[in-house]
Amino acid sequence: MLITMRPGVPKENVEKVIEFVESRGFAAHTIVGEINTVIGAVGEKTIDPRDIELLEGVAEVIRITSSYKLASRTFQPEDTVIEVNGVKFGGDHLGLIAGPCTVESFEQLDKTAAALVKSNVKILRAGAFKPRTSPYAFQGLGEEGLQMLREAADKYSMAVTSEVMEISQIEACEKYVDILQVGARNMQNFNLLRELSKIRKPVMIKRGLAATFEELLMSAEYVLSGGNKQVLLCERGIRTFERVTRNTLDLCAIPVLKKVSHLPVLIDPSHGTGLRDKVAPMSRAAVAAGCDGLIIEVHHEPDKALCDGAQSLYPSQYDTLYNEIKQIAPIVGKTIL
Amino acid sequence: MLITMRPGVPKENVEKVIEFVESRGFAAHTIVGEINTVIGAVGEKTIDPRDIELLEGVAEVIRITSSYKLASRTFQPEDTVIEVNGVKFGGDHLGLIAGPCTVESFEQLDKTAAALVKSNVKILRAGAFKPRTSPYAFQGLGEEGLQMLREAADKYSMAVTSEVMEISQIEACEKYVDILQVGARNMQNFNLLRELSKIRKPVMIKRGLAATFEELLMSAEYVLSGGNKQVLLCERGIRTFERVTRNTLDLCAIPVLKKVSHLPVLIDPSHGTGLRDKVAPMSRAAVAAGCDGLIIEVHHEPDKALCDGAQSLYPSQYDTLYNEIKQIAPIVGKTIL
Amino acid sequence: MLITMRPGVPKENVEKVIEFVESRGFAAHTIVGEINTVIGAVGEKTIDPRDIELLEGVAEVIRITSSYKLASRTFQPEDTVIEVNGVKFGGDHLGLIAGPCTVESFEQLDKTAAALVKSNVKILRAGAFKPRTSPYAFQGLGEEGLQMLREAADKYSMAVTSEVMEISQIEACEKYVDILQVGARNMQNFNLLRELSKIRKPVMIKRGLAATFEELLMSAEYVLSGGNKQVLLCERGIRTFERVTRNTLDLCAIPVLKKVSHLPVLIDPSHGTGLRDKVAPMSRAAVAAGCDGLIIEVHHEPDKALCDGAQSLYPSQYDTLYNEIKQIAPIVGKTIL
Amino acid sequence: MLITMRPGVPKENVEKVIEFVESRGFAAHTIVGEINTVIGAVGEKTIDPRDIELLEGVAEVIRITSSYKLASRTFQPEDTVIEVNGVKFGGDHLGLIAGPCTVESFEQLDKTAAALVKSNVKILRAGAFKPRTSPYAFQGLGEEGLQMLREAADKYSMAVTSEVMEISQIEACEKYVDILQVGARNMQNFNLLRELSKIRKPVMIKRGLAATFEELLMSAEYVLSGGNKQVLLCERGIRTFERVTRNTLDLCAIPVLKKVSHLPVLIDPSHGTGLRDKVAPMSRAAVAAGCDGLIIEVHHEPDKALCDGAQSLYPSQYDTLYNEIKQIAPIVGKTIL
Repeated sequence: MLITMRPGVPKENVEKVIEFVESRGFAAHTIVGEINTVIGAVGEKTIDPRDIELLEGVAEVIRITSSYKLASRTFQPEDTVIEVNGVKFGGDHLGLIAGPCTVESFEQLDKTAAALVKSNVKILRAGAFKPRTSPYAFQGLGEEGLQMLREAADKYSMAVTSEVMEISQIEACEKYVDILQVGARNMQNFNLLRELSKIRKPVMIKRGLAATFEELLMSAEYVLSGGNKQVLLCERGIRTFERVTRNTLDLCAIPVLKKVSHLPVLIDPSHGTGLRDKVAPMSRAAVAAGCDGLIIEVHHEPDKALCDGAQSLYPSQYDTLYNEIKQIAPIVGKTIL
Repeated sequence: MLITMRPGVPKENVEKVIEFVESRGFAAHTIVGEINTVIGAVGEKTIDPRDIELLEGVAEVIRITSSYKLASRTFQPEDTVIEVNGVKFGGDHLGLIAGPCTVESFEQLDKTAAALVKSNVKILRAGAFKPRTSPYAFQGLGEEGLQMLREAADKYSMAVTSEVMEISQIEACEKYVDILQVGARNMQNFNLLRELSKIRKPVMIKRGLAATFEELLMSAEYVLSGGNKQVLLCERGIRTFERVTRNTLDLCAIPVLKKVSHLPVLIDPSHGTGLRDKVAPMSRAAVAAGCDGLIIEVHHEPDKALCDGAQSLYPSQYDTLYNEIKQIAPIVGKTIL
Repeated sequence: MLITMRPGVPKENVEKVIEFVESRGFAAHTIVGEINTVIGAVGEKTIDPRDIELLEGVAEVIRITSSYKLASRTFQPEDTVIEVNGVKFGGDHLGLIAGPCTVESFEQLDKTAAALVKSNVKILRAGAFKPRTSPYAFQGLGEEGLQMLREAADKYSMAVTSEVMEISQIEACEKYVDILQVGARNMQNFNLLRELSKIRKPVMIKRGLAATFEELLMSAEYVLSGGNKQVLLCERGIRTFERVTRNTLDLCAIPVLKKVSHLPVLIDPSHGTGLRDKVAPMSRAAVAAGCDGLIIEVHHEPDKALCDGAQSLYPSQYDTLYNEIKQIAPIVGKTIL
Repeated sequence: MLITMRPGVPKENVEKVIEFVESRGFAAHTIVGEINTVIGAVGEKTIDPRDIELLEGVAEVIRITSSYKLASRTFQPEDTVIEVNGVKFGGDHLGLIAGPCTVESFEQLDKTAAALVKSNVKILRAGAFKPRTSPYAFQGLGEEGLQMLREAADKYSMAVTSEVMEISQIEACEKYVDILQVGARNMQNFNLLRELSKIRKPVMIKRGLAATFEELLMSAEYVLSGGNKQVLLCERGIRTFERVTRNTLDLCAIPVLKKVSHLPVLIDPSHGTGLRDKVAPMSRAAVAAGCDGLIIEVHHEPDKALCDGAQSLYPSQYDTLYNEIKQIAPIVGKTIL
C-alpha cells in the first residue's frame, strides 16, 4: 500500500495516516519528496484503500501487491499444461475445441461430430444448460442433453466440454463432461467457483463482459485456492461502445495474461465476434498472437441451429480454418494435433 | 423484424430473404424505396436477426418488438407501487432504505439501527452472504447473519432487505427478509431469477456492470413471468473507462426506465460512486431526477467496517442528507415518510 | 514515481532500476517490504512510466504527482468565480445559459431570445460554426451567424456564448462572443487550446466523449498556463456501451472535479442525454448535486430546428424547469439570478 | 427511415407520423403487423430520427441508409489499392511502415533508417508536430523536423509519413511528406478533413478513441467527397474499462471494415497496446486477420526516446517480426515486399 499525501499538507495529516495504518497492523515507511510525501505501508493484512483515501491530506492510495498468488508467474514460473484426450493446452501446445452452441438432439451432435472428426477435432463442445436473456427463448435440454453429448463424443473417441451454470448441475457435469466451462456471466459467481475448486477436472473460466484481466485471475484464484490446479482462462469479448460486433474481442489478453500468469489462455472467436464471417480471421489472429487454444462453434446446418447459428461455422469452413491454423502455429512455436 | 437490403441488389436476393422468413412462419411485406428495398417480417415467433444478416444482399436487420412485455408500460400504463412496512416505492412515493454493507455482529446492527430510526428509516439493509472478488477476503456470516438482522430490525420496528446470491439461500431469505436483492453480478443468473419468480415477496434487481437498460428489463421479465409482480429496479453504476469513481452512476436510468416501464426505479449511490463524499450529492441528484427510492450504506463506525466502510455514511451524515431530500422531493412531486 | 518490484527478484534488478532513475535525474528511495521492494523516485523531471515497466523485475510503476497544477485546489484552494453579464459561475453561484443549438436566422434568434428573457436568461448560446459528422449535413452560418447572435443578444441585453472550432475562428469569436466554448471533439486540440490561453475572455472546455477527468483538467491547464485564468469545465456525457441515451451523462463529475479543482463545473444536459424529455430531470439532478452552471438548448420551434431539435426544450418547458431549479438551488447553498 | 409504433396506439397517432414525414418530403408506406404498425419513410432528404421519436405513440425510429457512400463497397466493389514508393496497401498487398514516434534529431532518424532499410522498410514514419496531453511536455520540432525526416528518408530511398494536426501545417506536410496522417484526436476535426480532401496525396485516418466504425467511415467520406480518393483507414485501439493496456486494439476492425468498405485497413499495434512486448504478437495477429498494412514504432535506442520509447521496438526486434510476418502473409493470400 502506497499513500501519497497532497503537496504541502501539515505534518499532523501525515502522522494521522501513519497512526491509522499502524493501528491496522502495517509497518509505515515515509519518503519525503520535493513535492509530495509518500508513505509505504507494508504488511500481510488487507485494508480497503478507500478508507485511507478519505483521511485528510491524502491524494491517492495504491495497492501494490496483486491479490492473486497461485495464478501468478511469481508463484509458478513455468507454464501449466493441461491435457485432455491427448490434446494439450499451454506451453508449446495449441489445443482445439469445436462443436455446436447447444445440444439439440443426438442426431445433430452425431452429424456434427462425424464431420469434425475428419478435421482432427478431439474435444467436442455443446451446451446443455442454456438459460437465455429472454424468458421466452429455448432453454436447453439439461442433463438429458449431457448424456447425448457424451454418447456422441464416445462414438467418435472425443472428449467433451460443456457449461455448468449452477452448483446443482456440477454432479451431472462431473459425470459426463471432461472440461467444465464457467460462462462469462458466472465469472464472478464465487459460490460456484468455490464448489468447482473441489472437483478434479479441468475448469475453463470465461472472462466476463466487463471484467478486467485482474478480476479474471482472481476468479481463477478461487478455483486454484481450493486445490483444483487445472484452470484454463478464456477471452470471449468484452462490451464496449462499438456494437457492430456483438462484443470486442480483446486479443491482447493473450500476451497480457501469459506474461503475468502460467495458466493456458484460450480464445472464443464465436462469442467474441458473434458473426460467422469474422470467426476465421479472428481465429487465425489468435493463433498468430500465441494463444494456447481455441473454442469454436461449428454446426452441421447452422441456418437450422436453435441458438447462435449465425456465429457457427459450417464443417467445411472449420476444415479450411484448421488448415490455415496448422500453417500459422509453428511460426509462433506452437505444435498442434 | 425489418430487413434492409443493400442498394441495387438483384431481385433474387430479395426473393430468397422473403422465402427464408416465410419458411420460419413470418408474413413478409416489401417496401421498394428509391435506394433500398426493405422487407417487414411480421409474426409471433422469433428468429435470430443474425441468421438473416448473413443472407446475400442484406444490409441490416432490426428487431422491432421489444422482448419484454410484462415489464413495459404498454402492458401496464400505471405505475406499480410496492409497499413494505409503510414505505412506498413508485407513483408519487419515494422510499428510503439504509444500513451497513454487511452484517458483522448484532451489536453493530443494533447501534446502526438505533441511530437510523431517529432519521425515520423503516427498512434496514445489510448483507449476510458476501462472496468477494478475492477468495482471501471476509465472506459474510450467512444465515446466522440474517437472523441477527431480523432481530435488530424487529427491535426498532423495521423491515429488512438483504441480498440472495444462490438458489439454496432463497429459503432462509424468505424466512427473515422482506425485500430480496439480486446483486449486479447475478442480474443475468436466470436460474436464480426463475426461482425468485415463485416467491411472493418483493425482489430488487440491480443493473449489471455492463448491462443495458433492455437487459435489466428482460431480467425483470423473468421474475414477472413467473407470477411475482413485485419487482424493483435498481441502478448502481456501470463500468466505463473512467476509474476515478468506482463506477459511473447513470442517473439517466431514472427517466429512461420510468418512460418504458411501470416498475419503481431505485438508486444505490453507495456502490454507484464508491466514495462517501460522493454519496450525498448523488443521492440529492437522484431525488431531483425523480427516482422512486434510494438504498444507502450507513455504518455506525464506518472506519471500523469490515467491508466498504469507505462508501458508508456516518449516521449524522445520513440525517443531514435525509433533511435535504425531504426538501427536494416535493419539488418533483414526491412524498416521503 | 513509485516502482514496485515483483516478489523475490534478485538484487541486481533493483539496482538496475535505481541506476536508471538516477541517470534521469531522480533521487531513489527504497522500501524493502515483506513481499515486495518498492522504489520511490523523487524529482522534478518526467519519465514515461512505461520505460521503467519494461525493466526486468518491475511489477508496476505509478506516477504520484498529478500533471495539472494551476487547475488544482492545491494551487488555489478557493473557488474561481467567473462573472459574465451579471451571471456568476462558481462559489455559491449557479449560472444559467440557454439558446438554440445553431444559428439559423436572425428571426429564429430573436424569437428564442424574446421568450428566454422572460425566464431571466442573461446569456444566450448558439453555434455558428457547425461541421457535422456527415459531410452532407448543414454546416452552420459562420461569422455571419456570430453577427446575428450578437445583434439578437444585444437587443435583449444578453451576453453570448458560442463554439470556436479552429484557430482561424478565434478572431471573429473574440469580436462577437463573451464565452468561447471548446467542443468535446476539440478537448485535446492542443494547438487551439494554446491560442485560447492568450485571449482574455472566459473559455468553456467540454469533456471529450472518452476523456478522463484528469485529461479534462490537463486541457484546462493548457489554457491556464498561457495566462487565461477564466476557464469553465463542462460535463456533456461520455460514450459507454449504453446507446439508448446518446451519451451517459456522468453527474459525478460535479463532486469529483470540485474536490480536486477550483474551476467552475457546468453541465450540458442537452448533449448529455440527446432527448428533450430527459433534459429537465437531468438538469434538476445536476443542480441538486451542486453544479456551478447549466447550458441548455432551447428553440422557439424545436420541431423545425435545423439541428438537434429533438434535444431542445420549448421555451415554456425551460420556464417550468427554471422555476424548479430556483427551488432546488438554495437547498444546496446556491444562489441564482 | 423505419418508424415502429407502440402496440395498440390509436389511428390518429399513426396518421400524425405519416403527415409529419410527408411534410418533410418523404413518401410513407405502412405495414400493419399483428403487434406493431411500422411506417417506412422513403426519400432522399434527411430527418433527425429523434424528431420522430418524440411524436406520440412512436416506439422506435431507425435510419436505414448508411450515411457514407463513396467509402462503401456498394459504391465501389473492388478494393482500393494505394501505392507509395513501391509499397502497396490493399487488395492482395500488405504494406509496412516503421520509424520512431517523434523526430528528435537528424542523427536519430539517420540511425533508425539505416537499421530499418536492412529489414526492407521503404516508408519511414516520425512525428514532427507533437502537442501532448500535458502542456509541460516536449512538443515536437515542427517544420524543421519534417525537413530532417525528408532528408533522412531520401538518403535511404524511403518515402515518408507524418501527422498533420492543423490546417496551417498542411502546406509544409505536402512539401515534405508522402502520406499525411490524421491522428485519433483529429478524426472528427472536419475542418481539417475538408482541407485534406483538396490535396492529392494519400491520407491515413486513425480511428478515434471512442469512434465507431461508422464514424470512421464518415470521416473518410469527408476526404473522399472532396475528390481525394487515396484514403487509408487505421485502427489504433479504443478506450475501454480495461486499463492494463493503454488501449484495447480492436482487430475485428479488419474483417468488419473490409466487408463494408473498399479502403485499405491498417493497424497501429504500437499505440494500440502501448507496450513494446505486446507489439509483435498483435502485429502477427493483424496480419493473420488479413490487414492491408502495419505502422510500427521503432527507435534505434528506445530507452533514450523523447516520446513513447516504451512502445517502440528495437531494430533487431523489428527484423524478427518482419521475418514472422513474411511467413504469415502468404497463408492469408497477401504479398509483401
